Amino acid sequence: MSGLVVASNRGPLQFALRPDGGLGWSRGAGGLVSALAPVLKGRACTWISAAMTDGDRVVGAGAPAATQLSRSQPRLGRARLRLLTFERATYDRSYQEVANRTLWFLQHHLLDTRTLSFDERFRASWACYREVNRTFAAACAGAAADDGSVHLEDYHLALAPAMLRRRRPDVGILHLTCCPWAGPDYFGILPDDLAGELLAGMLGADLLGFLTDRWARNFLACCEAAGYDVDRECGVIRAEDGHKVHVRSYPLGVDQQALWRLAQRAPTPRGGEFGQGRLVVRVDRMEPTKNILRGLDGFAAFLERHPRCHGEVTHAVVTNLSRPEMAEYQRYRAEVEHRVEEINHCFGTPSWTPVRLIVLDDHPRALRAMAVADVLVVNPVWDGMNLVAKEAVLVNQRDAVLILSRNAGAADDLRSGAWLVNPFDTAELAEALAGALAMPAGERAERSRRLRTAATSMPPRRWFAVQNADLARVRRSLSPEP
Amino acid sequence: MSGLVVASNRGPLQFALRPDGGLGWSRGAGGLVSALAPVLKGRACTWISAAMTDGDRVVGAGAPAATQLSRSQPRLGRARLRLLTFERATYDRSYQEVANRTLWFLQHHLLDTRTLSFDERFRASWACYREVNRTFAAACAGAAADDGSVHLEDYHLALAPAMLRRRRPDVGILHLTCCPWAGPDYFGILPDDLAGELLAGMLGADLLGFLTDRWARNFLACCEAAGYDVDRECGVIRAEDGHKVHVRSYPLGVDQQALWRLAQRAPTPRGGEFGQGRLVVRVDRMEPTKNILRGLDGFAAFLERHPRCHGEVTHAVVTNLSRPEMAEYQRYRAEVEHRVEEINHCFGTPSWTPVRLIVLDDHPRALRAMAVADVLVVNPVWDGMNLVAKEAVLVNQRDAVLILSRNAGAADDLRSGAWLVNPFDTAELAEALAGALAMPAGERAERSRRLRTAATSMPPRRWFAVQNADLARVRRSLSPEP
Repeated sequence: MSGLVVASNRGPLQFALRPDGGLGWSRGAGGLVSALAPVLKGRACTWISAAMTDGDRVVGAGAPAATQLSRSQPRLGRARLRLLTFERATYDRSYQEVANRTLWFLQHHLLDTRTLSFDERFRASWACYREVNRTFAAACAGAAADDGSVHLEDYHLALAPAMLRRRRPDVGILHLTCCPWAGPDYFGILPDDLAGELLAGMLGADLLGFLTDRWARNFLACCEAAGYDVDRECGVIRAEDGHKVHVRSYPLGVDQQALWRLAQRAPTPRGGEFGQGRLVVRVDRMEPTKNILRGLDGFAAFLERHPRCHGEVTHAVVTNLSRPEMAEYQRYRAEVEHRVEEINHCFGTPSWTPVRLIVLDDHPRALRAMAVADVLVVNPVWDGMNLVAKEAVLVNQRDAVLILSRNAGAADDLRSGAWLVNPFDTAELAEALAGALAMPAGERAERSRRLRTAATSMPPRRWFAVQNADLARVRRSLSPEP
Repeated sequence: MSGLVVASNRGPLQFALRPDGGLGWSRGAGGLVSALAPVLKGRACTWISAAMTDGDRVVGAGAPAATQLSRSQPRLGRARLRLLTFERATYDRSYQEVANRTLWFLQHHLLDTRTLSFDERFRASWACYREVNRTFAAACAGAAADDGSVHLEDYHLALAPAMLRRRRPDVGILHLTCCPWAGPDYFGILPDDLAGELLAGMLGADLLGFLTDRWARNFLACCEAAGYDVDRECGVIRAEDGHKVHVRSYPLGVDQQALWRLAQRAPTPRGGEFGQGRLVVRVDRMEPTKNILRGLDGFAAFLERHPRCHGEVTHAVVTNLSRPEMAEYQRYRAEVEHRVEEINHCFGTPSWTPVRLIVLDDHPRALRAMAVADVLVVNPVWDGMNLVAKEAVLVNQRDAVLILSRNAGAADDLRSGAWLVNPFDTAELAEALAGALAMPAGERAERSRRLRTAATSMPPRRWFAVQNADLARVRRSLSPEP
């Protein structure tokens, strides 16, 4: 039993079975885990997540190797880690079919509305998603102290709040959504019964968090369209059992000190490591939502219109692989590689490669690329927040201009310093690249100053503390802090 | 000069050059034209539309053959028809690239958000769209009487209201949108400058009409997101030049007498003309928005789950071809044909063909199919209104159950009698088919009664008169009728 329980699909550590039978580990990927890990390792809490790898399953089953490892588990600090094991097919259908392929693309407006359909097979996958949520809810119910608090993280666990509330009405429940939230029309593409179950599931919480006001407002509108009694002004929804659910936004920022420590771990950059001349840099997971292809198209359109920049500007596309087991992601990677080749073939010269595609899984080195950029491109189709935008402006050493998609949550925080673009508009991106490269030093410095201030305004520790405090207030029937 | 000018992309008559050099004509297709033609032919008005065919261009140019024809122009009644001719490439880019491929799919949530992008080429097409709108505005400005009224129809002419207002501030301007309208997030996929131009263009009108409240509310939300001063309660927007724009919905219904006269023109149905046993019927243009493929999937899922119905139920898919010059539509037709073959191959027997695909362009015969249906399926992905749903319940002679997409505007009018479904949910459609076929006669009769009342509540003549009266009120600085 502990005062605080945190549950997220992916945990802070990922375990791997080594050929010698031992267990290795690495940091769990993703912005949420990266933000939470440093905050939680100093707290006596329980962190529950899914066993995703074979190594995770060994640890989750409490096998001897795992016990051995748990004595030397690095960097969990005071947080106790618990890994839930699932029947493999159940977990895969929940994670791949429902979470990744449906909910993720739904909230990013990337469903293929011409071909997708919800059939019996999808409903069977949804039953798996329900099962995974039930297991999480049961584990949280077992781990939470009397009148304790449980934080359920993201769209993988949208049904768990109501399941947990039924088991443990005494605990305070927060659910935080880290992706965007679509408006009622697009959200309504989901089958009515399943959409209803999703909303009712989330409304089992006392407090629902989103990364920006925009996603919170869309969620309120979805609840209103579904017939709930919604007070949009106050951000309060009356759940079916009558309890009040408060909806708030918590715009996650960056811990500047920690980021600098991390950046210093990178080796000194070699000259021209990321390309020659002035550098246009992007750093992303290889992900359709990140919009790398249209970024390349925009860069090609810029080169087309500005022949004088040939040989003078290089675009460094730094990516790490994401969900490589999904066919969509394999195809996306192949398309990106193909487009890079096309551009280099079309515009390149013996002494100049216009685009450098750098696939790596090395955060410090990615930070080095951000540091030496003259222009940063962060143009996701949609994005819950996008921490790369905030990290980049903090580590950059050249007063880089940040070209930022207005559909990223980060745009709400960084709009005073960033150059906002529509991520579907490659002509606009081409113009923005030209404008950014021509921007006078004084304006770049002034914008960078504003960007740095905004990027650090809500570092993870404070961000988490505010959520906690709001949950405590809500449980005492008070409103969250305005 | 005439008191009323109506402008629509497609006119009430379509002309064709005959091999002998003469001109033939046929009725213009589409729900809007079908509704307007009987209303306008009794009025001394000018109807301006685009010359779309070679025959149209001859008529539009006022060539001798056309003059000859105009003396015997059938069924225009008192309405004077004027066809505008455009440079072919300009019109095609405006019509295909902007209107059909972009605005139409945008408002129906059918953009391919993974691949579409707005580049310089698209902006060149937009310039063509602007040019076509300018020509329409100029023609309307020339045709309208002092203090007359101009009705501009649909998304093809979204920029024309502001252009017309600048030329003729004395005339009253109504613009009516006949497709759905997407919410601000999805609408925001359009480039910012072009979306801004579109809204500002429409806001040149005094009165903006939509086919249901839902689309009107989405439009108001889009204007609010774009920074306009919007009174959502009253449906009023303050345009940039300060004038008030009223936003109203006009839910078009069916003229029952005219429909019956038309239905009587169909030949007596031969036994089993549309299939054997009980009949599930749909009648649609061959159009991705009409969702024929998911309709077929739902029927297949129904057959899968109800083997006892094999041989007892047939699905008649009655379609006429639409935009056959567009590759998307050719592919869609091929997919539909392929899916029909698959289902017939999978479930068919020597004595029973489960699906009959009937491609025709014969409204009376389509009405006959609706008349003998036991179940009517109208499941568009999205739809401004869908008059087939309303026509079908009026001509049907078997108290058919209407299974209707909740994303059709018609769902707002017919919800008390229809069986509403989510158009993406093929499992739900399969269940609805089973439920509809099992529905007791008493309930079917009661639902049919409610459907017939709702379908005729706003026939075209009254629908048009209300719009006219509202425009007159708005011009006298009064509010439209509540």
